[in-house]
Amino acid sequence: MSWKFTPLELKRLCPVPSDIDIALAQTPKDIDVLAAEIGLQPNEFDCYGKQKAKVHLAAYERLESRKNGNYVLVTGINPTPFGEGKSTTTVGLCQALGACLKQNVFACLRQPSQGPTFGIKGGAAGGGYSQVIPMVDFNLHLTGDMHAITAANNLLAAQIDTRIFHETTQSDEALFNRLVPRTQGERHFSAIQVCRLKKLGISARSPAALTEAERRRFVRLDIDPSSITFHRVLDTSDRYLRKITIGLANSERGLSREAQFNITPASEVMAVLALATSLDDLKQRLGRIVIGTSFDGEPITADDLGCTGAMTVLLKEAFSPTLMQTLEGTPVFVHCGPFANIAHGCSSVIADKIALKLVGENGFVVTEAGFGADLGMEKFFNIKCRYSGLTPSVVVIVATIRALKCHGGGPPVALGSPLPDEYTKENLDLVREGFCNLRKHLENCAKFGVPAVVAINRFKSDTENELLLLKELCIRHGAAAAAVSNHWAEGGQGALELAKSVQSAALHATSAFKFLYPLEMSIEEKLETIAREIYGAGSIELSQRARKKIALYAEQGFDRLPLCIAKTQLSLSHDASKKGEPRGFAFPVRDVHASVGAGFLYPLAGDIMTMPGLNTRPCFYDIDLDTETGRVMGLF
Amino acid sequence: MSWKFTPLELKRLCPVPSDIDIALAQTPKDIDVLAAEIGLQPNEFDCYGKQKAKVHLAAYERLESRKNGNYVLVTGINPTPFGEGKSTTTVGLCQALGACLKQNVFACLRQPSQGPTFGIKGGAAGGGYSQVIPMVDFNLHLTGDMHAITAANNLLAAQIDTRIFHETTQSDEALFNRLVPRTQGERHFSAIQVCRLKKLGISARSPAALTEAERRRFVRLDIDPSSITFHRVLDTSDRYLRKITIGLANSERGLSREAQFNITPASEVMAVLALATSLDDLKQRLGRIVIGTSFDGEPITADDLGCTGAMTVLLKEAFSPTLMQTLEGTPVFVHCGPFANIAHGCSSVIADKIALKLVGENGFVVTEAGFGADLGMEKFFNIKCRYSGLTPSVVVIVATIRALKCHGGGPPVALGSPLPDEYTKENLDLVREGFCNLRKHLENCAKFGVPAVVAINRFKSDTENELLLLKELCIRHGAAAAAVSNHWAEGGQGALELAKSVQSAALHATSAFKFLYPLEMSIEEKLETIAREIYGAGSIELSQRARKKIALYAEQGFDRLPLCIAKTQLSLSHDASKKGEPRGFAFPVRDVHASVGAGFLYPLAGDIMTMPGLNTRPCFYDIDLDTETGRVMGLF
Repeated sequence: MSWKFTPLELKRLCPVPSDIDIALAQTPKDIDVLAAEIGLQPNEFDCYGKQKAKVHLAAYERLESRKNGNYVLVTGINPTPFGEGKSTTTVGLCQALGACLKQNVFACLRQPSQGPTFGIKGGAAGGGYSQVIPMVDFNLHLTGDMHAITAANNLLAAQIDTRIFHETTQSDEALFNRLVPRTQGERHFSAIQVCRLKKLGISARSPAALTEAERRRFVRLDIDPSSITFHRVLDTSDRYLRKITIGLANSERGLSREAQFNITPASEVMAVLALATSLDDLKQRLGRIVIGTSFDGEPITADDLGCTGAMTVLLKEAFSPTLMQTLEGTPVFVHCGPFANIAHGCSSVIADKIALKLVGENGFVVTEAGFGADLGMEKFFNIKCRYSGLTPSVVVIVATIRALKCHGGGPPVALGSPLPDEYTKENLDLVREGFCNLRKHLENCAKFGVPAVVAINRFKSDTENELLLLKELCIRHGAAAAAVSNHWAEGGQGALELAKSVQSAALHATSAFKFLYPLEMSIEEKLETIAREIYGAGSIELSQRARKKIALYAEQGFDRLPLCIAKTQLSLSHDASKKGEPRGFAFPVRDVHASVGAGFLYPLAGDIMTMPGLNTRPCFYDIDLDTETGRVMGLF
Repeated sequence: MSWKFTPLELKRLCPVPSDIDIALAQTPKDIDVLAAEIGLQPNEFDCYGKQKAKVHLAAYERLESRKNGNYVLVTGINPTPFGEGKSTTTVGLCQALGACLKQNVFACLRQPSQGPTFGIKGGAAGGGYSQVIPMVDFNLHLTGDMHAITAANNLLAAQIDTRIFHETTQSDEALFNRLVPRTQGERHFSAIQVCRLKKLGISARSPAALTEAERRRFVRLDIDPSSITFHRVLDTSDRYLRKITIGLANSERGLSREAQFNITPASEVMAVLALATSLDDLKQRLGRIVIGTSFDGEPITADDLGCTGAMTVLLKEAFSPTLMQTLEGTPVFVHCGPFANIAHGCSSVIADKIALKLVGENGFVVTEAGFGADLGMEKFFNIKCRYSGLTPSVVVIVATIRALKCHGGGPPVALGSPLPDEYTKENLDLVREGFCNLRKHLENCAKFGVPAVVAINRFKSDTENELLLLKELCIRHGAAAAAVSNHWAEGGQGALELAKSVQSAALHATSAFKFLYPLEMSIEEKLETIAREIYGAGSIELSQRARKKIALYAEQGFDRLPLCIAKTQLSLSHDASKKGEPRGFAFPVRDVHASVGAGFLYPLAGDIMTMPGLNTRPCFYDIDLDTETGRVMGLF
């Protein structure tokens, strides 16, 4: 069934105005109108203002027996620092499929962090005539999910240190009396305390029945402060919080320790929310979050700290994806935005699941994964699809002539510096040389059994010869199709060729999706598989510390989790300067961490920044509110 | 004009069930229905889900020529640690006026912080049959205002340290080139940079026209790290953040300093939002926030740091109060919740202003102020009413037999311990003795020229004789009326006598509102006036530090601001153990701080805790989400 859907007309100007001017020039449909168009029933969504709504799992439950639509992943080659336009392509493709080709289509995007929004110019709502609107909302609080994640994360973080404090300053007896207080003469364990009893293998459920030794085990988590890997977060770029000492007030009696704040997208809670398949799954994953170990090396969880229920309550609205729309009025889900290095970099499972039911069997759900395909696509398949059980239909790999030239040996490019001539004048050799990077991603796609369409995101300076050459190379090396796309300047109309290619690939190309590795493989084997098969490494090199951690996780039973490798996005390898298709290198892993709640281990290849800073002139110098009109100025 | 208003029927049970059971048993009206009932037009509000809406200033602007309703302040005697039920009385009174007496009535309440919500049992949505619903929303994220305040606060906080870092590590030249970069060949000052030029008295507006000395003054704020009084905030009770060292990562090159986090309600941004009378006033107050001084002692502001516009943008939705309803379907605004010690402890000016227009000339707006009348009422009058220009009609002073007995010499009471017999059995002497505390608040009320009605918040153990005695005493000592109120057990019906007394006082008693002091008084004089007239002190005692700060603020021109004294709420004096009506004591001021953006100085009498901690068994041990039904459990 096709939606009774009215697109918004795009009045395009040339030259293309600024993103915010384009966004503010378009009047979005009232969100309840869009919700009705795509078949949502009134009890299945809640409006947040007139242009945003939260869509509830109830919609999925009603449509559970309906077949899923086509599931399209937008990924990219290894980018330059400018980015190659994955979000813009996702939006443009959806505008083409929905507004031009009248297909049922949903875009599922990540929510940006306020840190970069107020630091470095550049939003995540797409750009030009391919944007999500209202873009100001998209880039600010939206419906509060990011803040709810911050709150849930920090409740657990506060409880970790507070519990250490209380255990250090109280006897077993005092702790027990406080943890299991007498109310109206009786002591009872709360539900979350029963979880701990079960974990400890204590069968008694009546507080009076515990032996002294059992009481001690029950009340003492004995957290080793040096083992704590769960950090506080803020959604602000605040470099001074990268390393801090906490607990210096007299009230903490000298129990200070070194700690850190990360930016909210780096929170494990974000990854948990993005991977949860139901409210119950969300709660279970939160409860499993490991914050560190006891002095005996036992993993300590959110359940042990009694936080699971409260965290779930704090996240109950954040679990519903936010419905918005593109400039051409097609539906968009915005939901979650985990880091693409220390986490899996994809928007939520639940948004995709609801969207796949709403579009129905012949419709399309287009989603994206962070960074290049070596990181984003690999994790999308091996982590997100594994947990969601959803099967991808088509992969779209976004490439630009500019980035390929860079991979082909063009001079280095940097933000804020003018582009060298190689990038603004025809240079077929550089394109031909640099194609190896795209070729490798096409090969990788084939390893997962999913057909790939290349989206050549067109820039003004690209020549017809360059574009023609690139298309030929793509087809010759296994792409199901390659389409030049001009959605930035032209909206959906500019992505028509791409949209038709995706349609055709979904219909005709064979998709036989398979994972790259089984979960039963050892951690080392998984690491080696990803490094060799996806990155093109010749071997892996484990540091002493990484070996120790791998042994520890195996002992703790976490070795059956998928891997989420943290490395640079700028190269297929671990070394940002290695462009093109590096081969046979030794891939070094310096450490391995665990996000047990989210459900993955994350090996670290290099230093990963988890708290950005503000530059000397952050972009907020231009941001202002016109208090007469309420109009936001200077946001992109 | 009377609203066409349909109350919700209250199906009362006896004994009174738990707050959450009562709240969940009632079905709220859809918020758009309530909005229509109270005369809001569709473009004047935005729904956030089906039971909350944000109401915009547009409603006020449309009704600007309409006369204001009666403006009723609910305050209290000096409380016991249990609290005496101001919020519950506010809600019960509104249910009585609106649902029973068919008056147009609005309650304007503060939004609670998530810190205490997840720490110590006890919400701020009222209790029993006098509550705001949905109470779960009320106590959680609501419409995100608290989080927006956190974000705006922390953007400024991050920029303070980052700016210090950039100034320390860069030459004047490099700073200027970065702060005023060439875009398409030209350098321009942004609007916020022009503010700084004006402040510095630099007349040039073209970057090239600045002399080297002017450039230096422009780029170097020269912030003295030891002078910084603007702190980071989190809406989490996290005691380990009371004192921290920041900037310990290598990337900060040794520029560490001691810092602290406060809980969000303690943020000056919260006080600014609560006092702003328009979006433009909000922006100007934010821009005036003083974060510390330069090494030369010059105050450094948010404007100097370039943050004002971005902070205003982050707060633009938070500026609109949230519409909810009572258990009996009368309208409630929930907006802002500044601390009642280091800030003024009142909900927002803007909510009151909109509500006073909506209820119209004969209607009622009932709002509350934090802590006892010595703090809350005094600040409500001298700070909030001064900035809003609104004139109070009636004050309701909430008193309980229990608290008066405590003031009369009853044994100490504490949370979690059983009440001594004196509080559960008739004891007229203790009531008579303790009345002096209430009498002093009645006298204070008279000093402002506003009639006072005493609301005796009834407890089961109160005897008829005790209540009768108290009523007599109140009338004899200047109360316009005294009414026993049983709204906790009976809802609006239980507050009928109180409602009629308030109606009558508004109609018949003479209100000749005046401030306690003129702004032109010196800081010492203002301090002495409040301490003598309101607290009953004989003198003030300024520490060395306080004297120094008073001199500094006078020099900086901040001595014309009203005062916001931070002291204990448990006594009229600075000493929590001094019950009843202490007289003639020396009131000690150890320090004075400034919230220049909010618009007050806050002298400190004693240690004020600005970051709570979690106890050994925080109430979140009982909080859970039933993932089948979505029902929140254990929240109060």
